[in-house]
Amino acid sequence: MRIRVINPNTTEAMTKSIAAAAQSAAWAQTSVTAVNPSMGPASIESHYDEALSVPGILAEIRRAESEGTDGYVLACFGDPGLDAARELATGPVLGIAEAAMHTASHLGRGFSVVTTLERTAGRAWDLAERYGMSRFCRGVHGCDIAVLDLEQNPRTRDILVEHCRRAAHDDGSDVIVLGCAGMARLCRDISGEIGLPVIDGVTAAVNLVQSLVSMGLRKSGHGEFAAPPIKPYAGLLDSFGSVPAG
Amino acid sequence: MRIRVINPNTTEAMTKSIAAAAQSAAWAQTSVTAVNPSMGPASIESHYDEALSVPGILAEIRRAESEGTDGYVLACFGDPGLDAARELATGPVLGIAEAAMHTASHLGRGFSVVTTLERTAGRAWDLAERYGMSRFCRGVHGCDIAVLDLEQNPRTRDILVEHCRRAAHDDGSDVIVLGCAGMARLCRDISGEIGLPVIDGVTAAVNLVQSLVSMGLRKSGHGEFAAPPIKPYAGLLDSFGSVPAG
Amino acid sequence: MRIRVINPNTTEAMTKSIAAAAQSAAWAQTSVTAVNPSMGPASIESHYDEALSVPGILAEIRRAESEGTDGYVLACFGDPGLDAARELATGPVLGIAEAAMHTASHLGRGFSVVTTLERTAGRAWDLAERYGMSRFCRGVHGCDIAVLDLEQNPRTRDILVEHCRRAAHDDGSDVIVLGCAGMARLCRDISGEIGLPVIDGVTAAVNLVQSLVSMGLRKSGHGEFAAPPIKPYAGLLDSFGSVPAG
Amino acid sequence: MRIRVINPNTTEAMTKSIAAAAQSAAWAQTSVTAVNPSMGPASIESHYDEALSVPGILAEIRRAESEGTDGYVLACFGDPGLDAARELATGPVLGIAEAAMHTASHLGRGFSVVTTLERTAGRAWDLAERYGMSRFCRGVHGCDIAVLDLEQNPRTRDILVEHCRRAAHDDGSDVIVLGCAGMARLCRDISGEIGLPVIDGVTAAVNLVQSLVSMGLRKSGHGEFAAPPIKPYAGLLDSFGSVPAG
Amino acid sequence: MRIRVINPNTTEAMTKSIAAAAQSAAWAQTSVTAVNPSMGPASIESHYDEALSVPGILAEIRRAESEGTDGYVLACFGDPGLDAARELATGPVLGIAEAAMHTASHLGRGFSVVTTLERTAGRAWDLAERYGMSRFCRGVHGCDIAVLDLEQNPRTRDILVEHCRRAAHDDGSDVIVLGCAGMARLCRDISGEIGLPVIDGVTAAVNLVQSLVSMGLRKSGHGEFAAPPIKPYAGLLDSFGSVPAG
Amino acid sequence: MRIRVINPNTTEAMTKSIAAAAQSAAWAQTSVTAVNPSMGPASIESHYDEALSVPGILAEIRRAESEGTDGYVLACFGDPGLDAARELATGPVLGIAEAAMHTASHLGRGFSVVTTLERTAGRAWDLAERYGMSRFCRGVHGCDIAVLDLEQNPRTRDILVEHCRRAAHDDGSDVIVLGCAGMARLCRDISGEIGLPVIDGVTAAVNLVQSLVSMGLRKSGHGEFAAPPIKPYAGLLDSFGSVPAG
Repeated sequence: MRIRVINPNTTEAMTKSIAAAAQSAAWAQTSVTAVNPSMGPASIESHYDEALSVPGILAEIRRAESEGTDGYVLACFGDPGLDAARELATGPVLGIAEAAMHTASHLGRGFSVVTTLERTAGRAWDLAERYGMSRFCRGVHGCDIAVLDLEQNPRTRDILVEHCRRAAHDDGSDVIVLGCAGMARLCRDISGEIGLPVIDGVTAAVNLVQSLVSMGLRKSGHGEFAAPPIKPYAGLLDSFGSVPAG
Repeated sequence: MRIRVINPNTTEAMTKSIAAAAQSAAWAQTSVTAVNPSMGPASIESHYDEALSVPGILAEIRRAESEGTDGYVLACFGDPGLDAARELATGPVLGIAEAAMHTASHLGRGFSVVTTLERTAGRAWDLAERYGMSRFCRGVHGCDIAVLDLEQNPRTRDILVEHCRRAAHDDGSDVIVLGCAGMARLCRDISGEIGLPVIDGVTAAVNLVQSLVSMGLRKSGHGEFAAPPIKPYAGLLDSFGSVPAG
Repeated sequence: MRIRVINPNTTEAMTKSIAAAAQSAAWAQTSVTAVNPSMGPASIESHYDEALSVPGILAEIRRAESEGTDGYVLACFGDPGLDAARELATGPVLGIAEAAMHTASHLGRGFSVVTTLERTAGRAWDLAERYGMSRFCRGVHGCDIAVLDLEQNPRTRDILVEHCRRAAHDDGSDVIVLGCAGMARLCRDISGEIGLPVIDGVTAAVNLVQSLVSMGLRKSGHGEFAAPPIKPYAGLLDSFGSVPAG
Repeated sequence: MRIRVINPNTTEAMTKSIAAAAQSAAWAQTSVTAVNPSMGPASIESHYDEALSVPGILAEIRRAESEGTDGYVLACFGDPGLDAARELATGPVLGIAEAAMHTASHLGRGFSVVTTLERTAGRAWDLAERYGMSRFCRGVHGCDIAVLDLEQNPRTRDILVEHCRRAAHDDGSDVIVLGCAGMARLCRDISGEIGLPVIDGVTAAVNLVQSLVSMGLRKSGHGEFAAPPIKPYAGLLDSFGSVPAG
Repeated sequence: MRIRVINPNTTEAMTKSIAAAAQSAAWAQTSVTAVNPSMGPASIESHYDEALSVPGILAEIRRAESEGTDGYVLACFGDPGLDAARELATGPVLGIAEAAMHTASHLGRGFSVVTTLERTAGRAWDLAERYGMSRFCRGVHGCDIAVLDLEQNPRTRDILVEHCRRAAHDDGSDVIVLGCAGMARLCRDISGEIGLPVIDGVTAAVNLVQSLVSMGLRKSGHGEFAAPPIKPYAGLLDSFGSVPAG
Repeated sequence: MRIRVINPNTTEAMTKSIAAAAQSAAWAQTSVTAVNPSMGPASIESHYDEALSVPGILAEIRRAESEGTDGYVLACFGDPGLDAARELATGPVLGIAEAAMHTASHLGRGFSVVTTLERTAGRAWDLAERYGMSRFCRGVHGCDIAVLDLEQNPRTRDILVEHCRRAAHDDGSDVIVLGCAGMARLCRDISGEIGLPVIDGVTAAVNLVQSLVSMGLRKSGHGEFAAPPIKPYAGLLDSFGSVPAG
């Protein structure tokens, strides 16, 4: 089984850290590869960044499809380009917010999301609604650490522990969802500190995609997620005009 | 990893068929055991049956906890006793309706459930709402075959194919969810016939539970799903009064 | 008119106190009898307790049906087994949470529930949603008195007054719903103290059931709440296998 | 106990028919009086009619308050002026759509409303949402008989039976709600024909109001439904400027 | 283009202030006239006031229709009689709460309403729901100034600035909606102080109605908002019985 | 006032047709310019096309901001990149689906959308939900004409009339929303044929944006829609890394 994990930003250090989390969830016979696009933002912290990460993601999926790939994980908590990715791919595609929120709903009564910058909270709420998870999502909290500072800041772990503990208390939630792929390595540590299940979306999504592939399930090719119609593309993006068969 | 799959009815032939589906989803290092309670209804086709299957389910979980069990699957599409089971268990507990509906939401725009008797459709809608899946659930359709006739009736496969095809068309859905554990063996066959993803909840749930356990995730022991307070129980059910630590 | 009020737990002292509240709401020609099952938990404070109270409730309904009974009240705020009870009964069946929440919605803009243990709050929210009452329910608050301590604890009245007053203020609600059958006797007293309508579900449900019966209304026998199909039951619960005609 | 039933239109023949239905639901010690305003429309079949029925309704409540009245029923399925009536009254006020919809939700899985003119269907849906009953309301169907023709048209009964039967079938509902006070007299007859519970709002509301009064419950006087502030009124409506204490 | 702005209360000073706001939004070729009814309450601060303002509003619309009018604004934040007004008018009719809430939803993520008396907050929530705007409405806050004191009270501006600033902070909203036509003149001033968009419904509604008329759009004359059926009206309101063609 | 209308696809003929519709709604002092990006798809008929149109849209907004622009219209019914565009712009940004759906809600009880290809219906439903308009949206119907065929196909007008008429009938809706900017020129014609209000989003959005600008309203610069943080961008999209001040 071949799974492709796409880090939607162009920072390779982060791709490596995502690869480590993804590897830890690989099954015996699975090859899990983590990549990042060659074009797009260094990190995703706005709708603007997110929108501009999508062409790079789609280019990676086009490449992976031509190489033969069984399933995909989009490893940014905004799940950028998920619908378009599903049209393009033949196998299943999971976003890490999608995977983490669904997973949390199996373990407790309600979850809190702890993420990087407060300004991305709205996107998390939008995704919760889209996935049907708003009935479980009791709060979304920024911890004011920028994405690329997560690894640099020596206080990251302590700040996250503190925010997770407070979020659970204030929201009355019993599960925590980490709102950034860059937090994956701290997941078990935080859980040990606060005594609640803590979910990392990368690991959750890699497990889910492998499960789907192992059951022989692909994205539905009928209707909305059928392969997109082929048509001319202009300018900088003209290479996108010849869509590989979905 | 030790996973216990509980068939909530008392019909052993059905437990065997569920065991086969569950086994097919077991990972390399996982021991998956399917059991059924010694008390309760021969099949579950009403709220009455469902309510009376729960003591048997809880007795099985009490036993499994004392033996050491990492996670549970409740293998009836009504997901009977799920909240109580979560209080009792230390590891994760998944219902097959829960697993199937969530899985379907990753693959398409909307799913149809095809189940046994029409009178159980309301329960499926209730569960869809509870799990946040009503925005994906576009229809629930009985095919008028009783649970224990699924294996006997020579036309089961053809009737299911026909109902699944029509449900997808009439509901405008692009994924099918099979609404009974007894339909598991026909899952891939139906999918091949109708050209859409078809989800069997047993396989989906066994995969999900293994994923959760492999990530070190248990049901949240804080708040609503903490172990229930110990207290006297009277009469026929007095053995339930001494709750094993959750 | 013959009304049966079922206390779902097995504590007779509580049955007596419920009987007193129920009697106070009996009409001139009505015989109201309060009973409790011979099997099940001494009090209901978890999903586990609630699930295990249901066989006893259903046994009482089977008995009452054979004796001729016009309507039922389930006198625990979790409304345990309501759907199964409706299948079994020919007349109307009301839960006390159902009755209390609906009643509150006729009197004000929004209500707060004050109940026993905090861990049962989730169940109250689930019921509010099921009955369409979540738009009126502004808060559910545990007062940390166990069900069987309500009568023993000398401070019960004062604690309830304080919680009700604070709930109304914090939630901005204008009606209070008492979240346990064991609080019935304090209903008018609390209302006098805080100057707001306070609803006891037992009295409300006994009134509602009598109203329904007096209008010649029974539970709908068509579809989901038709009498359950008869089938074999095994083990401890085998006596449930012969369902009386619904 | 003194209950005032207000027919919001000015047609006395209809007031008499409503009085008969209301009387049939009066308890032993209850005096139930049905009245209609001296100003307003002869029947209510538009938002315009409904809005212009409200001053007459409020005048009746002012009068009834000064005479001493324990509770009120607004006997038009649009429940006109319900919020304003609640401000003005000290006792409970019920609309017949409110009473009928809540009642239906206790008896089955979902109800259909059969009403007079199709153009009023939107109002019924609005009320269902307001009362939290839209999850139970599966359809609203006009039968194209004007309100004042209900008694004249010799085919009224047959047309209603046919519409109720078809509505239940097409909507998959198991209870019928009659959408006009003028249909009350046919309620049991239709139920007998179609084999489902059929709800008349007048009887249901009279029962509910008596129940509330017997429990010592009034509308909440705190917040939104407190007596309205007294202020100058001009022109035709100047008599409304001196509000009786609520 | 002829636009009629109706102040639903009978206080002429307020009509003048509304006229000024409305004029400021008039396009080059538009004649905007502000009027108030000759009957009804001096201000609207309860459901009672609101209900009794509607006959006066409808009388003004009848008159305006006979004079030839292209569109209407109802200039009270409760949007009284909107449905009835739509039946009566041939052109578009906008309420100022409707206009303000929709406008706010185009500019930010969520808005707070700052209104006069706390007791009217429920009405604002009801309207938000009706217009589909409850997903954007994050709070409704009374500032405890009566409608007719808004112009008299020398601290009105400071109190509003303070309430708007606090509402935005506490609700996490990024747009403010002013909840009374009498606040229109302070709109830009408050916005300057707090650094957020602040919406006045009068200006917003006058713009919207002109836009609709300029596009040739009228209220839909098909179905629910068709002209109301003509019928006898009795007593004080008998003049309403002859409806002008809608 | 300077308004920029952005056709998100790269087909200039369509930009011209959009310009004509936009011009017809320009106020006396307004300069309305219609443009299209130099990169991206020739038409938008999938999530893939939509995602890949966004960089071009954002490039146009960056350019327009540097030139001084008061407000924007995104002239594709999928409202692509709306959130990102709002971050980037200082003035208001409206999508044509947003404008059309809101406008429809002011005129009737419920609208039907008639669009190009059936596969885009899901996107229209998603937008209806996001804008709070799903309570008004009663159906979305593809007419199976590709976007760029709208002008070529000689039967376009007849097919649209037929689909609009049937949609209104089947959905019970009283307003029609045209689901593609390329249908603008047919708007009044279709309305004349079917006797219902028909909304073109381009005209509606141009009116709305002018209204907002004339009231001095900009997108909220506080919180989620503040200008995006500046950061490095790589590869093909590196020019997006220097964000103009929002």
